[in-house]
Amino acid sequence: MTHTPLETSTDENVGILASNSFDMNKLDTLHGTLHDLVAQREVLGPCYRLFYQKPLHLVSGRGTRLFDSDGTEYLDMYNNIPSIGHSNPCVTKAVTEQLTKINTHTRYVHQNILAYANDLLATLPPSLDRIMFMCSGSEANDLAIRCAQLYTLGEGIIVTAEAYHGNTALVSGVSPSIGKDVPMSPTMRMIPTPDTYRLGTDDIGTWMRDRVAEQIADMKRHGIRFAGVLFDSIFSSDGVIPGKPGFLQPVIDLVHAEGGLYIADEVQPGFCRTGDTFWGFQRHDITPDIVTMGKPMANGIACSGMAIRHDVLEAFAERNPYFNTFAGNPVAMAAAQAVLDYLREHDMLSHVSHMGKLLVNGISNLAKEHPCLGDVRGAGLFTGTDIVIPGTKDPDRATAVKLIEALREHHVLISLCGPYGSVLKVRPPLVFSESDLDFFLSALDASLTDIGK
Amino acid sequence: MTHTPLETSTDENVGILASNSFDMNKLDTLHGTLHDLVAQREVLGPCYRLFYQKPLHLVSGRGTRLFDSDGTEYLDMYNNIPSIGHSNPCVTKAVTEQLTKINTHTRYVHQNILAYANDLLATLPPSLDRIMFMCSGSEANDLAIRCAQLYTLGEGIIVTAEAYHGNTALVSGVSPSIGKDVPMSPTMRMIPTPDTYRLGTDDIGTWMRDRVAEQIADMKRHGIRFAGVLFDSIFSSDGVIPGKPGFLQPVIDLVHAEGGLYIADEVQPGFCRTGDTFWGFQRHDITPDIVTMGKPMANGIACSGMAIRHDVLEAFAERNPYFNTFAGNPVAMAAAQAVLDYLREHDMLSHVSHMGKLLVNGISNLAKEHPCLGDVRGAGLFTGTDIVIPGTKDPDRATAVKLIEALREHHVLISLCGPYGSVLKVRPPLVFSESDLDFFLSALDASLTDIGK
Repeated sequence: MTHTPLETSTDENVGILASNSFDMNKLDTLHGTLHDLVAQREVLGPCYRLFYQKPLHLVSGRGTRLFDSDGTEYLDMYNNIPSIGHSNPCVTKAVTEQLTKINTHTRYVHQNILAYANDLLATLPPSLDRIMFMCSGSEANDLAIRCAQLYTLGEGIIVTAEAYHGNTALVSGVSPSIGKDVPMSPTMRMIPTPDTYRLGTDDIGTWMRDRVAEQIADMKRHGIRFAGVLFDSIFSSDGVIPGKPGFLQPVIDLVHAEGGLYIADEVQPGFCRTGDTFWGFQRHDITPDIVTMGKPMANGIACSGMAIRHDVLEAFAERNPYFNTFAGNPVAMAAAQAVLDYLREHDMLSHVSHMGKLLVNGISNLAKEHPCLGDVRGAGLFTGTDIVIPGTKDPDRATAVKLIEALREHHVLISLCGPYGSVLKVRPPLVFSESDLDFFLSALDASLTDIGK
Repeated sequence: MTHTPLETSTDENVGILASNSFDMNKLDTLHGTLHDLVAQREVLGPCYRLFYQKPLHLVSGRGTRLFDSDGTEYLDMYNNIPSIGHSNPCVTKAVTEQLTKINTHTRYVHQNILAYANDLLATLPPSLDRIMFMCSGSEANDLAIRCAQLYTLGEGIIVTAEAYHGNTALVSGVSPSIGKDVPMSPTMRMIPTPDTYRLGTDDIGTWMRDRVAEQIADMKRHGIRFAGVLFDSIFSSDGVIPGKPGFLQPVIDLVHAEGGLYIADEVQPGFCRTGDTFWGFQRHDITPDIVTMGKPMANGIACSGMAIRHDVLEAFAERNPYFNTFAGNPVAMAAAQAVLDYLREHDMLSHVSHMGKLLVNGISNLAKEHPCLGDVRGAGLFTGTDIVIPGTKDPDRATAVKLIEALREHHVLISLCGPYGSVLKVRPPLVFSESDLDFFLSALDASLTDIGK
């Protein structure tokens, strides 16, 4: 095997971006205000996507709950950005207070960025001793790749076959899940999704190491110098694959032996999401060379970051200054600090570990009654459930799409991911409670019954 | 002429990013809290820059004024992000109110993005009928280039020799002012800075068209298909060059005749900055194919955008979905709406035009007494003043650097730009008043006297 095409994708743009998108050609199925608002989105152009056959017009949120314009309450089992809860007053307070004082940029000294930088670095391995801030996960991954390339003097980056790492030109080129029509970078190579459910190996680490080795060999054959790997620590868009803790060790060992860097994309798994450890890669007891982060970092205020070894950063810094207008500004830092403080003060790591186990157990119990629920897996409050043809491991995307539409009718918001668009991505705000769990499991049970599964 | 090297740069990294940066090797010249805070910035790595030999530790801001930790008040003559004033309560109120309601993303319907999109498009030519949102100007320019490339099926982008368009991999490659050690994109070509002061032509439009024509010819010779030009409408980092209104018409005509697109980078000149017209390109009565915007858009909350012709966008959208987690979220849109409302309700366009004329006149009057003040030019509240060897047009960077340090002693914050790092970039928040002007002109006069110029 020299190169892994996207043979696993069953139809166009199955990835995370289009799993249950509203079809704008069906605008006339909508009515009233919703129809008018959706119609108005024409000015935003055709790249934007709305969730659901009947899109949601959300007007408020509290904790794990979201409210539609008609007052309908939904349990949010999908959004990881408001990890400490929708409209968390700690964040509102921090942002408001800072906005009334000052909001400038990093060319002036400000204590917020320094206090936060130190607090954040304390969650990371000591070798990751530098932190820079950006506005989006895309910007963080864009910079991380450039740092890896300048340090190694290589170009070749390896990702998984259904990876999503962001939307800049560079990062889109290493994000195969964007869609088959988007050309990938010629110096990027893919390994297949480490599908622990279907691969039939109990040593996924060795399997994955061997796939990476094959792609490094292929790069050499093409005269491409290996720069490193860029892996989401829970393979979010590949279908949420926590795997056995530690399985990434042989992979990172190979990467280092081959002179490459290991970039951990923690934009989705970071900030207590996977339970037990603050960062997803820490479940595997590995030490990446670069860690990127974003989404839940400031509960919805634009904020992302890149933690990096100082010697790796220096290879970039020798040639490149870097300034990012809004990044690391006092307001973004105040919001990020409020999130980090909340996570610590509420011991969210323990809460997430506890609730995550209950969530996986709950779904697993339902699987006994509903055989379309295949593999149920998770780490903390990041879980994936394969929807399959009963008695097989064959993915059943049609049922998966029906199920998330049915769940919406039962007031639960959720989405899909994975190479076949058939994995339930269950990822509620971290403040998810036991009563939320009961509500979710009842709704899942009822929804499966509704669709005859 | 086939290719314009950066022969105009006098020393390394002269561009906007390093014009008066603090030298971290001089840390021991600082004392007390400032010393400690600057020392702590080591964790941010060596890419960050601080303004001034003695960096500023700013803790609050109001309108055009900024306050240091010891209570010292400064007049801000540099920062264009807080265009409606530091800590403007309208923005704080809009952000706070929206944060208490909901802050999700564009996959749910929300009225804020639609109301703002329509209001914003109303400021633009009718052919620019689609608007998308990002977090940073870099992301907007990154996407704009990709759209131009997919529409034209070309790769070649032309910029000016001291342009700065952002910090992603793609956009850094078309930002020569980042520094001579940063490799530029092999398919990018540069034209010289359209230096109206030194070029000795009163037909800068024809001159510039001819330079663009040369670079298109060079692209053809190299088998690179021309995709378009990316020009800041006031050539901010080239030294602030407003030029005669209308001079860009022959340039855009050529670009279109050659099958390329004209991308107007309005990240700095947009949102009333240049006076008379809402957008910088409107001073020239041209209609770009894509317009990018950012910095002042939401007064410091991360927000940027790309306005584009629907047919150009469709070439991108056919292949690419696009999602940007934080972009266009209800909070960013509320902040942006507050800014736009403020600009309209306070008729800032008239205010800026009026104050801009007074500012240029005031500096020009001082030039009679201080012959190191060379060309004084501006549009609205975006002005540039060349610092020169008296009696010549030779740039005097050393004096320019001394001058901004002296101005800081007189409680005025300002910076430099241009190919020689010798142009005073005078660009206060738009709420700049006549008493601010008096304060500035007195400080400038005194500072020039202090440095013996």
